[in-house]
Amino acid sequence: MSNLSRRNFLSLSALSLPVVAAGKGFTFNPKHSRSGRETKYGINFLYDGYFYSADEYVSVLDEINRENKIIYDLYGSGGVVEELEKKMAVLTGKEKAIFMPTGTMANQLAISVLSGEKTKVAVQENSHVYRDEGDAPSSVFGKRLVPFPKDKSSITLDDVKNTLAYSESESTFIEKSDMGVISIENPVRRGFGQQVKIEEIRKIAAYCKQHDYKLHLDGARIFMASGYSGIPVIEYAKNFDTVYISLYKYFGAAAGAVLCGDAEVIDKMQHLIKIHGGNLLGAWPYAAVALHFLEGFENRFQQAIENGSKIIAGLNQIDGFHISPVADGTNIFFLHIEKKDQAKVAMYLKEKYQFFLRPRPLEGITGLPFVINETQLQVPPEFIVNAFEEAVHAS
Amino acid sequence: MSNLSRRNFLSLSALSLPVVAAGKGFTFNPKHSRSGRETKYGINFLYDGYFYSADEYVSVLDEINRENKIIYDLYGSGGVVEELEKKMAVLTGKEKAIFMPTGTMANQLAISVLSGEKTKVAVQENSHVYRDEGDAPSSVFGKRLVPFPKDKSSITLDDVKNTLAYSESESTFIEKSDMGVISIENPVRRGFGQQVKIEEIRKIAAYCKQHDYKLHLDGARIFMASGYSGIPVIEYAKNFDTVYISLYKYFGAAAGAVLCGDAEVIDKMQHLIKIHGGNLLGAWPYAAVALHFLEGFENRFQQAIENGSKIIAGLNQIDGFHISPVADGTNIFFLHIEKKDQAKVAMYLKEKYQFFLRPRPLEGITGLPFVINETQLQVPPEFIVNAFEEAVHAS
Amino acid sequence: MSNLSRRNFLSLSALSLPVVAAGKGFTFNPKHSRSGRETKYGINFLYDGYFYSADEYVSVLDEINRENKIIYDLYGSGGVVEELEKKMAVLTGKEKAIFMPTGTMANQLAISVLSGEKTKVAVQENSHVYRDEGDAPSSVFGKRLVPFPKDKSSITLDDVKNTLAYSESESTFIEKSDMGVISIENPVRRGFGQQVKIEEIRKIAAYCKQHDYKLHLDGARIFMASGYSGIPVIEYAKNFDTVYISLYKYFGAAAGAVLCGDAEVIDKMQHLIKIHGGNLLGAWPYAAVALHFLEGFENRFQQAIENGSKIIAGLNQIDGFHISPVADGTNIFFLHIEKKDQAKVAMYLKEKYQFFLRPRPLEGITGLPFVINETQLQVPPEFIVNAFEEAVHAS
Amino acid sequence: MSNLSRRNFLSLSALSLPVVAAGKGFTFNPKHSRSGRETKYGINFLYDGYFYSADEYVSVLDEINRENKIIYDLYGSGGVVEELEKKMAVLTGKEKAIFMPTGTMANQLAISVLSGEKTKVAVQENSHVYRDEGDAPSSVFGKRLVPFPKDKSSITLDDVKNTLAYSESESTFIEKSDMGVISIENPVRRGFGQQVKIEEIRKIAAYCKQHDYKLHLDGARIFMASGYSGIPVIEYAKNFDTVYISLYKYFGAAAGAVLCGDAEVIDKMQHLIKIHGGNLLGAWPYAAVALHFLEGFENRFQQAIENGSKIIAGLNQIDGFHISPVADGTNIFFLHIEKKDQAKVAMYLKEKYQFFLRPRPLEGITGLPFVINETQLQVPPEFIVNAFEEAVHAS
Repeated sequence: MSNLSRRNFLSLSALSLPVVAAGKGFTFNPKHSRSGRETKYGINFLYDGYFYSADEYVSVLDEINRENKIIYDLYGSGGVVEELEKKMAVLTGKEKAIFMPTGTMANQLAISVLSGEKTKVAVQENSHVYRDEGDAPSSVFGKRLVPFPKDKSSITLDDVKNTLAYSESESTFIEKSDMGVISIENPVRRGFGQQVKIEEIRKIAAYCKQHDYKLHLDGARIFMASGYSGIPVIEYAKNFDTVYISLYKYFGAAAGAVLCGDAEVIDKMQHLIKIHGGNLLGAWPYAAVALHFLEGFENRFQQAIENGSKIIAGLNQIDGFHISPVADGTNIFFLHIEKKDQAKVAMYLKEKYQFFLRPRPLEGITGLPFVINETQLQVPPEFIVNAFEEAVHAS
Repeated sequence: MSNLSRRNFLSLSALSLPVVAAGKGFTFNPKHSRSGRETKYGINFLYDGYFYSADEYVSVLDEINRENKIIYDLYGSGGVVEELEKKMAVLTGKEKAIFMPTGTMANQLAISVLSGEKTKVAVQENSHVYRDEGDAPSSVFGKRLVPFPKDKSSITLDDVKNTLAYSESESTFIEKSDMGVISIENPVRRGFGQQVKIEEIRKIAAYCKQHDYKLHLDGARIFMASGYSGIPVIEYAKNFDTVYISLYKYFGAAAGAVLCGDAEVIDKMQHLIKIHGGNLLGAWPYAAVALHFLEGFENRFQQAIENGSKIIAGLNQIDGFHISPVADGTNIFFLHIEKKDQAKVAMYLKEKYQFFLRPRPLEGITGLPFVINETQLQVPPEFIVNAFEEAVHAS
Repeated sequence: MSNLSRRNFLSLSALSLPVVAAGKGFTFNPKHSRSGRETKYGINFLYDGYFYSADEYVSVLDEINRENKIIYDLYGSGGVVEELEKKMAVLTGKEKAIFMPTGTMANQLAISVLSGEKTKVAVQENSHVYRDEGDAPSSVFGKRLVPFPKDKSSITLDDVKNTLAYSESESTFIEKSDMGVISIENPVRRGFGQQVKIEEIRKIAAYCKQHDYKLHLDGARIFMASGYSGIPVIEYAKNFDTVYISLYKYFGAAAGAVLCGDAEVIDKMQHLIKIHGGNLLGAWPYAAVALHFLEGFENRFQQAIENGSKIIAGLNQIDGFHISPVADGTNIFFLHIEKKDQAKVAMYLKEKYQFFLRPRPLEGITGLPFVINETQLQVPPEFIVNAFEEAVHAS
Repeated sequence: MSNLSRRNFLSLSALSLPVVAAGKGFTFNPKHSRSGRETKYGINFLYDGYFYSADEYVSVLDEINRENKIIYDLYGSGGVVEELEKKMAVLTGKEKAIFMPTGTMANQLAISVLSGEKTKVAVQENSHVYRDEGDAPSSVFGKRLVPFPKDKSSITLDDVKNTLAYSESESTFIEKSDMGVISIENPVRRGFGQQVKIEEIRKIAAYCKQHDYKLHLDGARIFMASGYSGIPVIEYAKNFDTVYISLYKYFGAAAGAVLCGDAEVIDKMQHLIKIHGGNLLGAWPYAAVALHFLEGFENRFQQAIENGSKIIAGLNQIDGFHISPVADGTNIFFLHIEKKDQAKVAMYLKEKYQFFLRPRPLEGITGLPFVINETQLQVPPEFIVNAFEEAVHAS
C-alpha cells in the first residue's frame, strides 16, 4: 500500500535511522515470534532495544501482568503511569516527572514553558527539534529556532557563545536578549549517536545560569550516552532544567515519553497536555512496559556494551568484516562487509537466526549502521560472531 | 493520594458523569476480574459500555490476538489502525478517517482546519468543546467560541440563526461574517445524553451550506443517539463536514478517537497531529480493541436497548424503584430508590453480583443516573431485575 | 464612493455613536473652517470634543508650533511623545506611560501582558474589547473572553463574582482559575456613556487583589467619567494595573492612545508594539495636539459641563424640546424634538451657525444623542439656546 | 536622557544606517529651518530623501494644504489616504493598495496572508524581515523563517533552489513542501543598498509560479533600485504577489507604508490591520506628505542621480577625498577622507552650509556612507563640490 510505504519510510527513519535500510523488503511481520526460535523475540542490530510486533507486545504485557498486576491510570493519574513518573524523577534527580504521548510533545512543552515570554530557542542544527518536529516551535508555540553550526552534534560552549552573540546582535530593536532556552540533544540521532561532551555541558550550564537562559535536554537516548560515557543519567540531568526521555527507543514501550523537571515546571504540564490534545484516557499500555524495562536497565545495558565489544572484536577478526566507531559515539557503529553481498549476508542471518541487520547502507554513507543493544544478550557473543562468520562464508 | 483523587474526580466526570457518584469509595481495583463470578467482566450501569481494568484489558487483547493476529501500526500507518480508519470511513460515509489520541484533539483539529482564516466557532454552551477543552480553541488555535443558549442541548435552526445574527451584528469592524464553523455535540454528555433532533440537524446543515459555514459533529457518543433514534450513523454523518467518534465510550479501548471527513480535510491531519505532539509510535493497543468491538456493535447495542427496556419495565414494577427518562434522551435514565438507602443497595449489588451502580446522586440532581449498555447483555434481563429486587429487600 | 461610505459608516460608529446620525448627508467637508464664521472650528453635539478637518488640523498644528516649537520623536522616543507620556503617567499616578497608535492595541497589549500564561479575560458584554476589536483577543493573543451579563454597562462586584464562579466551574480539567485579567470599560460607549460606580470599582479592585486577578481600565473616555462624577482620574486609575486613555475622543488628536501602568508592564510594550507593527517612525503629529489639549483640559471640561447644564436647562424651557439624561450617565443626553422635523432643525443649525447635530435618531432609540463637550464653550450658553429656539420656530 | 539615546541609536540605525554616525552629538534640533539659510530644509548625505524636523513638517503640511486642501481619511478610508493608495496601485501595476502604519506590519501581513496554512518563509539572511522585525514572523504569525546564504544581498535562483532543497529535505515528517512565501528585499539596507538583479528576480518569479510559492517584495526602497537600474518600479512589481513601499525613506512622510497586491489579498488587510492594532483614525498627516512627494518623484530622483554623479566626480578630483561605489549598489557610496579629521570636515559643512554628513565611519567599515538624494537638488553640484573643498582645506 503506497501510503503505508511512504509514511513508513519516513516514520521509520525518524524512529531510528538504521531501520530505513530494511527498506522495501521489510514487512510488518507478526509471524516471527513466540515459538520455534533460538531467541524469544529475535536479535536486532537496528534499534536501541527491543522493538516488538503486536503479537510479542501482547505476550510481554501478559507476562508483566502475571508477575505483578498492572494498575491502570486515568488520564495519567495513578497506576503504573504514576509509578513510572516517580522512578524517572528519582533517576534524573528532578522533583517531578510526567508521562507524555510523544517526544515531540515533551520537547515542545518543555521549551515553551521554560522560555515563557522570550521568543528564541537555540538548538543543534541536526537536532530532532530543529529538523524533525515539523515547524511546531514556530507554528504552534510561536518560537524562533536559532541553530548552532550546521551538522555539528557535539557542540561546545564556544558554539553557544558565538551563536548567541550573533543572534543578539541581529536585531536593531531588541533591547535585551530574547533568547529563552537552549535545547541540547544528547546523544544526537542524526549524528549517529554522537555525544555532547559532559565538560562542555557543564560549561554551558554554568553559562546559562549566569545569563538566565534555561536549558533543556532532549535525552530521548540519554541512557545510551550514559552507558557509553560511564556518567550516570543523574549527572547529565543535573545540568538541565528539564529532561525528556523516550519510552520506546530502549524501554520497549509501543509509544510514550517522560519529561522530568522542577515541580513548578512539571505542574503546568497536565493542563498543557490536555489543551494540546495529548491527554490519553489510559496510558498504562505504554507505561507498564517501560516500567518493566526500566527496572535493571542500566545493568543490562552495561552488559550489552561489554557483550557488544566482544561481538565487534570478534567480527573484526573475521576476514570480510570491518567495524568502525563514530567519534564521540555511543551504541552505533559502522559495519563494512567487504567483497560480499551485504543483502545476502543480512538475509542469511535473518532467515536462519532471526538476526535483523540492515541489508544495505544509507545513501551517502559507507558501512551499515550496526547498533548494540540488549536484544543481543539473549545468546553469548561467540554465538553471534559464529553466526556472522557462517553467513559471510555462505554468501 | 490526594492528587490522584482530585484528578480522578475531575477526569472521571469528564469521562462519564455517572462514574462521579462512585465517589470517594471508588478505588482502582484490579481484582474484580477474570474468575469466580457470574459474569466475565462485571455489569455496569455507569458507562456507555465496558470499562476494563488493566488486567481485564490485557486479557481482552490476548483473546483478540489469538483469534486474529494483531498487526501493529507505525505512527498510525498500517495494521489495525488503518483497518479501523477504513471501517469508520465506511460507517460515516466519509472519504477518509484518521486515528487521534484524544477527542479533544479530534474536535480541535477538525474545527481549526474547517474554519481556516475565519475566527469564530459556534457551539452548544454545554458542549465538551465549550466547557471541557480548557480554552484550547482560543489559546492553542486562536478561535473565538460563540455559545448557543445556555444549558440547551437540543438546539434548533432558530437558535443557530439568532446566535449568528447577534454575533455578526456585534462588531462594528467586521465587514462580513467571520463565523467559520458550527460544532454540534450529539448526544450531549452534560445534557445527560440528550439528542439534537435529526430534523433540526438537517435544517442547520442546509442553512450552513447556503451560508458557507462548515459543520462539525462531536459524535463521541453518536452510536448512542443512533441506537435510540433508529437513524443510522451515516444519516447523521452526511450532514456534517467532519465527524469525531470516541473509541473508549462504548468501544472498550483504553484511549483514542477517530475523525472522519473529506480527503481534503483528513489529509491535513497527520501533519497537524505531529506538530501538536499526538503522533503515537504505535496506537494499535487502542485500535485493536476498538476494531474488535466495532464489529457487530450496532446489533449488540440494539439488543442492549431492548434488554434495557425490559430491565426498566421490570424495575418500575418493583416497589421502591422508579426509573424516569430524559427528554429527547438516549441511554441515560434516572433511577429513584425510594425509602431505602441508595448506597446500601448499590453496595449489595456490587458485592454479590459485580453490578456497578452509582451509590448516590449527583449534586443538584434527583435520582441516580442509570446507564443502559452492552455489559448488561451478559445475563438475561430478568436476572438483573431479580437481583435489584433482592437488593432492595435486603437493604 | 460606496466603499468609502460603507467603511465610513462602520468606522464612524466606532468612533462615536452620535456621528452615525449625521448619516448620508454628511460629507468630508474641509471648507467649514477658518473664516467667516461665528466660531473658529464649529460647535458639535456629536463627539466628546473637537473633531477637526485636515485643514483645521494643519492650522492647529501651526498654532501649537508657533507657540512652542514641536519636538519630534523617533519611534516614540523623545520630543512631544515623551512629554505626553510623562504627563499621562502623572495624571494617572502610574510609573510609566507609552504612546500607542490605537486603543485596540493599548487594550490588547495591556490584557495580553497582564494575563501572561492565563487564558481567560473577563469583560463587559457591551464593551469595546468584547464587541469592537474583531476577535483580536482570541485570534491574535490566544485569550478567551468571558462576558459579564449581557448589555450591562454598570457592572458590580456581584456580577464579577457570579461570572467568575460560573467560568471556573465550567471546565472539568482546569485545576485552578485560569482567569488572568478583568477589563473594565468606563464610561461605556455602547452604554451611551454610562459609568461603572466608583464604589463597585473599589470593591472589584480589592477582590482582584485578593484573588490575584489583574485589572485593566479601558478608560478611552475616563476624563468624561471624571468630569461628571467629580472623582479625579487618578482616583479611578489607582484601582487598576493598567489604564488606556484615547487621544482622539476629546484631546483633538487625529489618532493615538496612551497606556499607563507599572514600569514592569510598560517596559515590555515597546518591543510588543514593534512586533505587532505599530511602531510609528514619528508619532508627534498626534502627540503634539493631544499634549496641547491635555493642558488645562480638566478645567475646560468642568466649564463645559456647567455650560452644558445651562444649555440643557434652557432647551427644556423651550416648547418642542425635551432633553433626558442617561442613568449613571456622563456627557451623553437624549434630545427629543417634538412636533417638528428633526432633520430640518439640524440642517438649520448647521447652515446658519455651524452647529453639528444628529439629524435623526439611532435605530431602536428614541431621541437624538446630544453630547456635551468643550466645543460649546466658544459661545455663551444663551447664544446656543437662542439659536435652537430660532431653529425650532423656523422649522 | 539615556533611554532616549539608546532607543534613538537603535531606531536611527533601523531607519537608515548613515544616521547612526550622527551619533552622540546629534540633537533633535528644530531650529535649523525656515530662514537665514542657503537652502530651505538643509542638504543631507545621510538618508534617501528629506527627513524633516517637526517644525519643517508643519510648514510642509501647510504648504501642501494651501496648494490643495488636504482631505482627511477615517480609519484609512477616503481623502488623501485613498488617493495615495490608488496612485501606488497604478505605479506598481497592482489591483489595490492599502496604507499601513509601518513597514513591519506591511511585510508581516503580506507574508502571513500569502503563506496561509504553510509555515515556512524564505528570506535573505541580511533582510529587514530576518533581522529587524523582532521575531514577529514566529512569535506573532507562527511562521518559520528560512534564510538564504549569510550576508548575501544579491541572491540568485540558485540560492533559492539550494535553500529550498535543504529546507524540504530537513524534516522526516513533512510530506510536501510547507514553504509558503519567498520574500525578497530589494535593495537591501544591510547590504548598503545592494540590488538583487532583475534577471534573477525574473527567474525566481518563474520558479515560484511553477512551484506554487508566493513572492513578496520588501520594496521599502524600490524607487532607489529603480532609479539606478533604470527599470521602472512596475517592472519589478510585476514579478511579485505583493509589494511594500515605505513612505518615509524618500517620500518625506513622518511614518507609514503602503502594501500593493491583488484585490483578493489586499481586501483581507483592513481587518488584519484592525486586529493587530494598527488602524489609525486618521493617517492623512502621513499620506498627505507622501502623496505630495510621490508626484514627480521619479523625475526628481533621476536628476538627483545625475547631480550625484557630478558631485562624486567632482569630489574624486579633490585631493583628500575618494568616493567608492558598492557592487550592484544604488544611492549609497563610501566617502574616504584621507589625511584629514573626518569629524572636523563634517562639522564645518554642517555649521556653514547645513550639509549633514556622517562625522565618523560605522564600526568595521572603512569610509563614510555617502548617500545621494533629492535634497541635493537645492543647489548646483558645483556648489556642493566647492563647499567640500573649502571644508577639507579648512580642516
